[in-house]
Amino acid sequence: MTVPTIGVTSGDPGGIGPEIVVKTLTRAGRLPPAAYVVFADPHVIEAEAERLGLPISVREWREDGPVEPGVFLAAVAGPPGAAAMGIVSAENGEASFRAFEAAVGQARAGRLAAVVTAPISKAAWALAGHPFRGHTEYLARLYPGAIMAFWSEPLKVALFSHHRPLREAVEAVRKDDLVSFLEALDHGLAKLPGGPFRLVAAGLNPHAGEDGSLGREEAEEIRPAIEKAASEGIRIAGPFPPDTVFLQALGRKDVVAVALYHDQGLIAFKLVAFAAGVNVTLGLPFVRTSPDHGTALDIAGKGVADGRSMEEAVRLAAAFSATGS
Amino acid sequence: MTVPTIGVTSGDPGGIGPEIVVKTLTRAGRLPPAAYVVFADPHVIEAEAERLGLPISVREWREDGPVEPGVFLAAVAGPPGAAAMGIVSAENGEASFRAFEAAVGQARAGRLAAVVTAPISKAAWALAGHPFRGHTEYLARLYPGAIMAFWSEPLKVALFSHHRPLREAVEAVRKDDLVSFLEALDHGLAKLPGGPFRLVAAGLNPHAGEDGSLGREEAEEIRPAIEKAASEGIRIAGPFPPDTVFLQALGRKDVVAVALYHDQGLIAFKLVAFAAGVNVTLGLPFVRTSPDHGTALDIAGKGVADGRSMEEAVRLAAAFSATGS
Repeated sequence: MTVPTIGVTSGDPGGIGPEIVVKTLTRAGRLPPAAYVVFADPHVIEAEAERLGLPISVREWREDGPVEPGVFLAAVAGPPGAAAMGIVSAENGEASFRAFEAAVGQARAGRLAAVVTAPISKAAWALAGHPFRGHTEYLARLYPGAIMAFWSEPLKVALFSHHRPLREAVEAVRKDDLVSFLEALDHGLAKLPGGPFRLVAAGLNPHAGEDGSLGREEAEEIRPAIEKAASEGIRIAGPFPPDTVFLQALGRKDVVAVALYHDQGLIAFKLVAFAAGVNVTLGLPFVRTSPDHGTALDIAGKGVADGRSMEEAVRLAAAFSATGS
Repeated sequence: MTVPTIGVTSGDPGGIGPEIVVKTLTRAGRLPPAAYVVFADPHVIEAEAERLGLPISVREWREDGPVEPGVFLAAVAGPPGAAAMGIVSAENGEASFRAFEAAVGQARAGRLAAVVTAPISKAAWALAGHPFRGHTEYLARLYPGAIMAFWSEPLKVALFSHHRPLREAVEAVRKDDLVSFLEALDHGLAKLPGGPFRLVAAGLNPHAGEDGSLGREEAEEIRPAIEKAASEGIRIAGPFPPDTVFLQALGRKDVVAVALYHDQGLIAFKLVAFAAGVNVTLGLPFVRTSPDHGTALDIAGKGVADGRSMEEAVRLAAAFSATGS
């Protein structure tokens, strides 16, 4: 049996990342068959498994060894001092950055079909001298067409823009950039199982600008971009009123809603899919998923973290890898 | 038994307004006891009742007659030609405007505790020379502190701004205006049963601006406004990330989420409460509610309109009137 190799980073050692990784992978027998490779400081994983009372049996990963189902460890030593729970520190930031960078390197080299990332702390990364807002921004520097999307059974959303002030997000709605985005999105979706996908695009303004009386962007930028994309064969409709477009996508497995700014998409997504939503980066040569939540420092080390989103992220990575590889 | 007098306008005669009014009021025995007064052209109501096969027994309303439970009619003749179904026309617009104006006049004179409005067509109002975007905008001219809010069992939302381009809505987020809005909102909510209500306020930018790196409005305008409101005794917390603030309000009967722009609030509200949501105008000397949908010209006259939101609007008006009167 050929199985995909899926990298799993354990995220910031001070947060709930190690906990949700251990919780998910100790149930690897219930996950899709794959070689799951944890990129982490071995001490962090061992300490977490002990704290949770969940014995995790991992084998050392060998880059060029045979690929077989199971859980493996690619040891990525953190700096001295990494692993203090519940705090933001340069050491924790450095540890999570190193593990992520190692996993991405292996994926770029073709040794991983997918990378699943547990939550990191942007503040800890900054303290460690890595000024990325998150995984997606790091990947977008390597792959400028990278797209932040959110995946759940009832609702799928792709974001045209994400981490920028709303004022700037409004300014960024330009026809040419939107066409490029839609092309990249369509290309990224074409590689996934479950398709072909259709896109429903939100407008920017209330009632999608109505007759122009509530904003000109629909007429001047968005509609022309959608028409251009459609003329290229992309299955897309819109722009629709932002307050109903997600209802149009809801429950339709092959429909992806296109949101023009962060909260337009995430207000809808988090209401529909909160505990089981998965963050997906499209437009990469490999699959990348992550749980749709943060480090939750306040509950780190307490054993109470909800591992559902992490488990869904692993399952989705496996599903996407099975077709992609 | 003292019962409130509640005006019900039948909306645009070309849309589903008359249908949902007839459907709701022929079940008046299951509604809270009240004198329900329909403001409409009698021919429109009669024709709709006949089409639906729902005999509606109405008595003529006398302004200064005794108030008793039942369904009454305040005849407001439309212009000749009003009542063509499924179209936008000046005549239909004039008919719905006259009925609405008559009901508001009676409410202002103290003869109605509440006005429930079926959907009108803004385009038809414009053709008839009444350039209001909707009921709320008409009322806001009479009562500048009028607030558009949305009410359902699981979620309640008040909008700081509503029908304006997103670009302008961003510009409108100013401390002083926000303080005035919060004061008016608190005042309006204080008159309603089910309180005292608490407010949770959304930020404007992703992650509520984070540390300022995703926008300055939270630090410069929103947080100072919230602190000022709190110092005046208003029960309010925030600003919270827009993509989670509605989850904080969800399922909490005494919590109202404050949205800074139309779609921020309505993306959330429509996902949670679509078929049973009610539009409420706060800040008036009387109660005003309406169903949270439009004229639905495409299904007008077919008998298939979903009357739930209208019925909820009537029930809410009755509940609010019972305390207010």
